[in-house]
Amino acid sequence: MTERRAPARLSGPVRVVGSGLLGTSIGLGLAGRGVEVIVDDVSPMARRLAVEYGAGRPPGPDDVPALVVVAVPPDVTGAVVAAELQRYPQAIVTDVASVKAAILAEVRTSGADVTRYLGGHPMAGRERGGAVSARADLFSGRPWILARHEAVDPRAAGLVEALILDLDATPVELDVEAHDQAVALVSHAPQLVASLLAARLIDGPDAALGLSGQGLRDTTRIAAGDPALWVQILVANAGPVAEVLRPLRDGLDEVLTALGDIDGPTARRRLLETIAAGNDGVARIPGKHGTSGRYTTLTVRVDDRPGELARLLTEIGEERVNMEDLRLEHSPEAQVGFAEVSVLPAAAAPLADALAARGWALLEADR
Amino acid sequence: MTERRAPARLSGPVRVVGSGLLGTSIGLGLAGRGVEVIVDDVSPMARRLAVEYGAGRPPGPDDVPALVVVAVPPDVTGAVVAAELQRYPQAIVTDVASVKAAILAEVRTSGADVTRYLGGHPMAGRERGGAVSARADLFSGRPWILARHEAVDPRAAGLVEALILDLDATPVELDVEAHDQAVALVSHAPQLVASLLAARLIDGPDAALGLSGQGLRDTTRIAAGDPALWVQILVANAGPVAEVLRPLRDGLDEVLTALGDIDGPTARRRLLETIAAGNDGVARIPGKHGTSGRYTTLTVRVDDRPGELARLLTEIGEERVNMEDLRLEHSPEAQVGFAEVSVLPAAAAPLADALAARGWALLEADR
Repeated sequence: MTERRAPARLSGPVRVVGSGLLGTSIGLGLAGRGVEVIVDDVSPMARRLAVEYGAGRPPGPDDVPALVVVAVPPDVTGAVVAAELQRYPQAIVTDVASVKAAILAEVRTSGADVTRYLGGHPMAGRERGGAVSARADLFSGRPWILARHEAVDPRAAGLVEALILDLDATPVELDVEAHDQAVALVSHAPQLVASLLAARLIDGPDAALGLSGQGLRDTTRIAAGDPALWVQILVANAGPVAEVLRPLRDGLDEVLTALGDIDGPTARRRLLETIAAGNDGVARIPGKHGTSGRYTTLTVRVDDRPGELARLLTEIGEERVNMEDLRLEHSPEAQVGFAEVSVLPAAAAPLADALAARGWALLEADR
Repeated sequence: MTERRAPARLSGPVRVVGSGLLGTSIGLGLAGRGVEVIVDDVSPMARRLAVEYGAGRPPGPDDVPALVVVAVPPDVTGAVVAAELQRYPQAIVTDVASVKAAILAEVRTSGADVTRYLGGHPMAGRERGGAVSARADLFSGRPWILARHEAVDPRAAGLVEALILDLDATPVELDVEAHDQAVALVSHAPQLVASLLAARLIDGPDAALGLSGQGLRDTTRIAAGDPALWVQILVANAGPVAEVLRPLRDGLDEVLTALGDIDGPTARRRLLETIAAGNDGVARIPGKHGTSGRYTTLTVRVDDRPGELARLLTEIGEERVNMEDLRLEHSPEAQVGFAEVSVLPAAAAPLADALAARGWALLEADR
């Protein structure tokens, strides 16, 4: 999968600072395209590992990188970016941290040449894993945000975009502030909400937890994220995250008021509006391939034996239908599962008929 | 799938009131076992449809049901249960509403013979869909709660348990109050939290929504639920839901205080504790088959062509590995997907090696 050999857009040596999952994956991806990569890390052991992986060569005293990619934890990114700008006065410097305004401010304050800094944020993979989880194709097909700011040199935009394209990712331009507000809305606030909800389960009776369904699993899944990393992110994006959570808290207060006076004149309307607003909000999340709107979901009963789901998907393929999404839902204590197969609306009814004719049990057709 | 013909435990005529998804499915399931079913509905049209589906026969003037199953919307369940108790003085009456204490109180207040009422709550399917979505096997392998109360006649417990077993569901006994607290924790409060979070997306810029990942999709998926039905549920379970949401609101207030004074002495610790508590809470959710603990997840890159996922699953089957769970993750604007395959921890490393040897690209191994 990494063997495609289209000529790389980047030419100069690229210096990657930090050899965790992202840094090592960037090194592997660029090295695989024939770009000269220098890989560095404060830990000599981590650096050696990344070099052995093929992510690049160790740094030397005469390095003149054209581009420096800083891939270190968010709380030290600003300082490392500033240091790299000063160390390599000709180089463009970018980073991969999931917050941008605080880092830009830190670079500005440092007195480093901020015109050569253009931050980035690849929306790729999980942020845990380290070098051992690195993949040359980690960024393939993923959005990678270029976080514009007023002072940036046009040459920087060209080089960082070339980096993104060489890694088969999709460049998305956003202002620094718009970026931070966007990730506060779609990532950082949801993380805190999921954590607060999941925390309610700590003292729940076993019998209650035993009734957990897919809904609870979904709403709390991301609450399993790494606390130390999340604190760094939240500290660096506190303002925008608070701006999302404040009206949410006000909405929660109104819900609590309604629940506390459930026979009051406005309680039912308040609850109805809350659920209806949730309907409207979730409808705004784009589907696969960046398109908006919904797919039609067929729920098919699948016996819990190896090969059954494969047989279902093979038969869907034989019907020449492309699945847009797939979920497997399990019942506690049951030896059956339910495959939720999402397809384009026009394909749903013919596929349902075809599967039924092949002997599959379809539970219901959702919107 | 509904052709198993073990002798039914229930013998008497069973009267099902309400021919929506649940009522019609109950009728189909019992009729398939040879039990005499009477199906009724306030809407003659809906009743006729259920009869045509094979869910039972229409009611007659001389019906003497042994068991009445009330499967009407939550806000009228109490009144219908009371009316059925009075109309059939020998019958045991149960229901399928997802709240229990409010209904029991309503039955008590009505003066009906509450000793013959034992509420139930099948944790099955979606609650939308109507008779057209009904399936004889809707309850197969699902938990079905018997909501005990002090006054209940032991004969009632026997009959309702027979109903549950005849529908291949799993009886779970809980006190009425414990039931309502449990579903408040694992279902009703998560619904409101997902709705409040999703509502924040209404005014989000398109560019922000375009960065939505699987985490946001998961945390907000259930926010697409039916507002009218949810208001009925929340009204009937307001107290227990508020008991879950109040400490959540307090936690959110503390998070907002921390975010508002991010350099203050306790801000970082407060955020760290919030994320860590979420880790602990999500770890309490039981996995598949009622077991606790985690599976190991392999993330496999799958090209977005018909048949590719089927080929992957076929090859997993050939390796004699049983998947515990499967998720398909899409990148916006990409023609690749990532299949997250969960397996027992012991199976993970050999499967990863086998898939890699077969040419699949594995992204990383999670916990």
